[in-house]
Amino acid sequence: MWQKLTLCTSLLLAATAPTRAETAPASTSPDWEAIFRALPQPANIKETMRRMSARPHHVGSPYDKDNAEWLRDRFKEFGWDAQIETFYVLFPTPKTRLLEMTSPSRFSAKLEEPAEAKDPTSRQKSEQLPSYNAYSIDGDVRGPLVYVNYGRQQDYEELEKQGISVRGAIVIARYGESWRGIKPKVAAEHGAIGCIIYSDPRDDGYAAGDVFPDGPMRNKDGVQRGSVADLPTYPGDPLTPGVGATKDAKRLDIKDAKTLTAIPVLPISYGDAQPLLAAMTGPLAPPSWRGGLPITYHLGSGPAQVHLKLAFNWDIKPIYDVIATIPGRAFPDQWVIRGNHHDAWVNGADDPLSGMSAMLEEARALGVLLKQGWQPQRTIVYTAWDGEEPGLLGSTEWVEQHGDELAQKAVIYINTDDSGRGFLDVAGSHTLEKFINAVARDVEDPEAKVSLWKRWQAHQIVTGTAEERREARSRPDLRIDALGSGSDFTPFLQHNGVASLAIGFSGEDQAGVYHSVYDDFYHYTHFSDTDFVYGRALAQTAGTAVIRMADAQLMPFEFTDIADTVQTYITQIKHMLEQKQDEARERNREVEDGLFVTTGDPRHPTTTPKAAAVPPALNFAPLDNVSTALADAAQRYARAADKARGQLSHDPAALLRVNARLMQSERELLDPKGLPKREWYRHLLYAPGYYTGYAVKTMPGVRESIEQKDYANVAAEVGKLAQALQREVDLINGAAQDLEAIK
Amino acid sequence: MWQKLTLCTSLLLAATAPTRAETAPASTSPDWEAIFRALPQPANIKETMRRMSARPHHVGSPYDKDNAEWLRDRFKEFGWDAQIETFYVLFPTPKTRLLEMTSPSRFSAKLEEPAEAKDPTSRQKSEQLPSYNAYSIDGDVRGPLVYVNYGRQQDYEELEKQGISVRGAIVIARYGESWRGIKPKVAAEHGAIGCIIYSDPRDDGYAAGDVFPDGPMRNKDGVQRGSVADLPTYPGDPLTPGVGATKDAKRLDIKDAKTLTAIPVLPISYGDAQPLLAAMTGPLAPPSWRGGLPITYHLGSGPAQVHLKLAFNWDIKPIYDVIATIPGRAFPDQWVIRGNHHDAWVNGADDPLSGMSAMLEEARALGVLLKQGWQPQRTIVYTAWDGEEPGLLGSTEWVEQHGDELAQKAVIYINTDDSGRGFLDVAGSHTLEKFINAVARDVEDPEAKVSLWKRWQAHQIVTGTAEERREARSRPDLRIDALGSGSDFTPFLQHNGVASLAIGFSGEDQAGVYHSVYDDFYHYTHFSDTDFVYGRALAQTAGTAVIRMADAQLMPFEFTDIADTVQTYITQIKHMLEQKQDEARERNREVEDGLFVTTGDPRHPTTTPKAAAVPPALNFAPLDNVSTALADAAQRYARAADKARGQLSHDPAALLRVNARLMQSERELLDPKGLPKREWYRHLLYAPGYYTGYAVKTMPGVRESIEQKDYANVAAEVGKLAQALQREVDLINGAAQDLEAIK
Repeated sequence: MWQKLTLCTSLLLAATAPTRAETAPASTSPDWEAIFRALPQPANIKETMRRMSARPHHVGSPYDKDNAEWLRDRFKEFGWDAQIETFYVLFPTPKTRLLEMTSPSRFSAKLEEPAEAKDPTSRQKSEQLPSYNAYSIDGDVRGPLVYVNYGRQQDYEELEKQGISVRGAIVIARYGESWRGIKPKVAAEHGAIGCIIYSDPRDDGYAAGDVFPDGPMRNKDGVQRGSVADLPTYPGDPLTPGVGATKDAKRLDIKDAKTLTAIPVLPISYGDAQPLLAAMTGPLAPPSWRGGLPITYHLGSGPAQVHLKLAFNWDIKPIYDVIATIPGRAFPDQWVIRGNHHDAWVNGADDPLSGMSAMLEEARALGVLLKQGWQPQRTIVYTAWDGEEPGLLGSTEWVEQHGDELAQKAVIYINTDDSGRGFLDVAGSHTLEKFINAVARDVEDPEAKVSLWKRWQAHQIVTGTAEERREARSRPDLRIDALGSGSDFTPFLQHNGVASLAIGFSGEDQAGVYHSVYDDFYHYTHFSDTDFVYGRALAQTAGTAVIRMADAQLMPFEFTDIADTVQTYITQIKHMLEQKQDEARERNREVEDGLFVTTGDPRHPTTTPKAAAVPPALNFAPLDNVSTALADAAQRYARAADKARGQLSHDPAALLRVNARLMQSERELLDPKGLPKREWYRHLLYAPGYYTGYAVKTMPGVRESIEQKDYANVAAEVGKLAQALQREVDLINGAAQDLEAIK
Repeated sequence: MWQKLTLCTSLLLAATAPTRAETAPASTSPDWEAIFRALPQPANIKETMRRMSARPHHVGSPYDKDNAEWLRDRFKEFGWDAQIETFYVLFPTPKTRLLEMTSPSRFSAKLEEPAEAKDPTSRQKSEQLPSYNAYSIDGDVRGPLVYVNYGRQQDYEELEKQGISVRGAIVIARYGESWRGIKPKVAAEHGAIGCIIYSDPRDDGYAAGDVFPDGPMRNKDGVQRGSVADLPTYPGDPLTPGVGATKDAKRLDIKDAKTLTAIPVLPISYGDAQPLLAAMTGPLAPPSWRGGLPITYHLGSGPAQVHLKLAFNWDIKPIYDVIATIPGRAFPDQWVIRGNHHDAWVNGADDPLSGMSAMLEEARALGVLLKQGWQPQRTIVYTAWDGEEPGLLGSTEWVEQHGDELAQKAVIYINTDDSGRGFLDVAGSHTLEKFINAVARDVEDPEAKVSLWKRWQAHQIVTGTAEERREARSRPDLRIDALGSGSDFTPFLQHNGVASLAIGFSGEDQAGVYHSVYDDFYHYTHFSDTDFVYGRALAQTAGTAVIRMADAQLMPFEFTDIADTVQTYITQIKHMLEQKQDEARERNREVEDGLFVTTGDPRHPTTTPKAAAVPPALNFAPLDNVSTALADAAQRYARAADKARGQLSHDPAALLRVNARLMQSERELLDPKGLPKREWYRHLLYAPGYYTGYAVKTMPGVRESIEQKDYANVAAEVGKLAQALQREVDLINGAAQDLEAIK
């Protein structure tokens, strides 16, 4: 159904905006989308990456500002309005970094990524930020080491079973599975006094592939920098939650900032980690905890004592957001927003410039269209964010500063960040699932020479489960993932309710240089999208989406996919609860039958589990009911939209009303009071996990209340969510009614 | 039901044998089982292990003969008849062992397990067999290296997908997953000219635990010796298949022996493997192929060229089987046979002496009973096999030599081999499942102080799936595994149809010294059943089983468990076929839809799968029908046995007939023509996998015909199996009829 509608929209691309009817017949207007898609050039994308990655360009660095000004000037050169908007944010940089083992032998961690002869920019020592975790507090701690695997809640449960406490200890966790900022947060909750995070070679090193510079993977000295602010509580400047960090904004004292860590944290390489882990004793780590170092992994605590000393310059630094616009001809107050960050931890070729360079090429191509006479119906806003790496600073401060305006004007936000080679990778609002599926059908994959959609579908069939295969073959649209956090869509989607998409390519190459000095032009041009053809495909995809949304007569939001998705989330949550009930009942039975005592190994005593309350039955009926209503409303809207095809210009006022509703459809899913424990996050369908980080928790209020055993709160969360979905139902029915009235 | 019957049998232990009725009332006869179980002493087991592991005692070594003679003398000292039976077998030992890398750099493998200062017997260099694989052919080959993971059929399919051929190459495979002899067999079938097998530290080294001598796991120099004869074709002396290798037996020429390898094979340590694997290039090994070395695993072939040169002394050596007997009072021609091997690859504390030492302590305790006036109703035969390590030589030759007699007289064979600490581990004939469950209820676990059965059950509940938990809780008997191969039960069970059990303890300790010089008294007494209390429990368990079977009025065979088990095997095979059909249909659809082309990565081209025939539907109705008949007959027999309880002595002739049938019940499952491609293996329910080795394939004729895509043969195999099961049904009905007639 949507394919036909898309075709129709496409023919009407430059056609009548309801309030400003034009008379040119559809068949004679240029196919601006097709014209656009022929314009992006790999060579330009490559040159942008080369230029912007030529020097380190982290927040506060000279080249960060230089890049922002260069970007602004490019936009202007391409015919856009462009300016830099500056905010002032807390950005700590290291003053002291010391990690040493004091017993059973002495060892000082190197904490240094050496220059590689083959890799020119790895030599830019004077401008590189050293390896550290931003927003770790200062600290000077000594204690025994305990290995905590990925540092998740369940890892501490396993430690407790083994009789190991981290109280007073310095934990060493490996990167992966949970977002890095979760590791010190959970460690501190369990009484640890310091946290070391290392990249294990099994996850990110020689076990995963040849190491840099001979291959793409992390070598023994590579370190993953990164923010450890408590982003699942709120992103952005830690001192200005909820408001833009303008020069004279009211700021918290540093000591009152809720998102700084409670304990000092330092990331290290596996070269530095190996002597520490090798010196540990205590129980053998469980099989799934063992990494790829050539040692036996022990839990500790034992003779290995370490000293961790960290001090930071707690400076306020300027960040430079580049905001470029093409005003909409018909609807200047309806904004189609596209963004990517420009700051990096060091040279940042993959992260963020693979996405940024494609976006700038889109901007150039749109500029070419402008010169050929095209002007979008809606305003197009291209944004290049600064300060994403420390904590989505540039996007969050801008969204907070312009929140009221965005609430009125934002139609969509489309993000790209690091992107490589392979298969289309889309996550976002499910009201846009059909939209982005349609876009993917119109862009060619540069390797397979079929549409991106065809290759995406083939990938899902070849790698999927039986159920996934069935859906990939028969469902009208391929499923897109929900968004958690980890890039600049977060403030748009989760704070302001702007329907969002994140787009990239992945699946054919691996890389192990994330947030290291080796994420640079040399690496990207040897091990990733080396000829930038996927960069071009990314520009074609995102640009097509922008043009299509900016010029659509009826905004291509759609609701059968979100209705279906909501249904799957409800089912998942019910299953999760049932599983927890079954597990608790079974464990209690085993406890009562004394099975843990009977099977215990006296040479390796473990804590005997205790019987625990079985999760209660919970009332999901309000969700079931509203889910049915949502499916009905979605069907009604789809029928109405189908029927109104070709007649939309008969009633411009009605079309205006429908589009005004559609723009607001994601907003209905917000709760102005926010989620439990974190009011900044307002979206009731999607949030980053409070205890997992980037990865999404869908229906987070309900799901996390169950996961955190706060069963008493579930009814309230179910109620809030059901109300939000009911508002969505009402909005959809209202839009359908308006469409039904068009004759 | 069986518990009651057992109790009854136990009261009647020394009571009336049908042909020699005695009048002593059951209640006054001693409880010989209970008396027996109080006798085994850990200190004796420890001393036996110390004595027998004091020097290397492989086939042909002075201490091998010395141990045999010492054992014989112990049996005699304990009051048994005992003698040594000698066979003469082909036993190659190394003359030349050379493995060197000739490019891209030069490296010579050390091929040496050094003495460890802490470990006294590791210094006995002059008597140790060097590390090698017995029955590798001589060879002098040079070629590129290809890494083949575990060297299974499916590993070569993956290599083919990656476009890698092993033709003309020397393969390097890791130990594990398939039995070692399978690796050169499959390699040669694919055209390889040599085979290196190494112990990867992920499976058997530092990744699994601390390494020897600080811990139990394999250190960088540890090598797993072992036979690579094609034992799934036939075990025993390669030159005398099917007949005893007596001095003047007719022997094949070495060149005609079917079980020698086709290509030279050498086992190496991970210390020796690392430089070879590190030098390889070619495609990255798939994730599941990557081991625990601190390198990136590649498939080859690339610049790494190796030279492998092996030559052996192809000697005929004597082997010394120790055969000890206590004649049965009532039924001297009904033999209850118990066995364990005494030869080792080097000092062999765990393998085989952990089982051997417990067995000798049983023999001592049975001798004590003899002195107290007990004499078993049936003949007890205790056997200590030589030459198990090279290929079950001692047991196979003895069984082949005494095949006709065994067919008449053997009631049961009970094997132990290496045994440690933890949970009872039983595999065997399912006609004995209820029997061994009952025995396990009567022996106490030395750690948990509950019955072995209770702890075994608890372990199955705590570690099992939901279905396994349900069964462990509600099924009358805990399930025992089926037997494949890997120890001396094989000729009894699979060649001669003697119902067999293999018993041991495991689950609490790990060890990485299998078939190395470090499997010795120091290792066992530091890292395994250090106080030999599980050795005592093993003696108590096996000895109780021996006494109970030797003295039982009605032999404790039972058929409801085998009927249930046969049903599960039929279901498994049907599911396997369905799954293969589904997979083939799905793959063909993906091939026809071009999905492999669409998803292919041009930088890493792989072979596109081809459409292949979907396995046909097959007729399992004969098995379904006979399975129903088997369940009915088993129920009938159970009812009849229950009803006849207490009245068995009323009709000694009928009881004789019943026991004669029961003794033959396993024999009915043989086919004298043997399995496809390997006539030596005659059991139609259990066999080692032709392409997997030790691990069992149940219903092997049917299952392997499907696995090997020989669908045309399935009907014949189903027919043979159904006939065998029908013979079993007839036997059971006959036995039931006899019991029903007892009034």
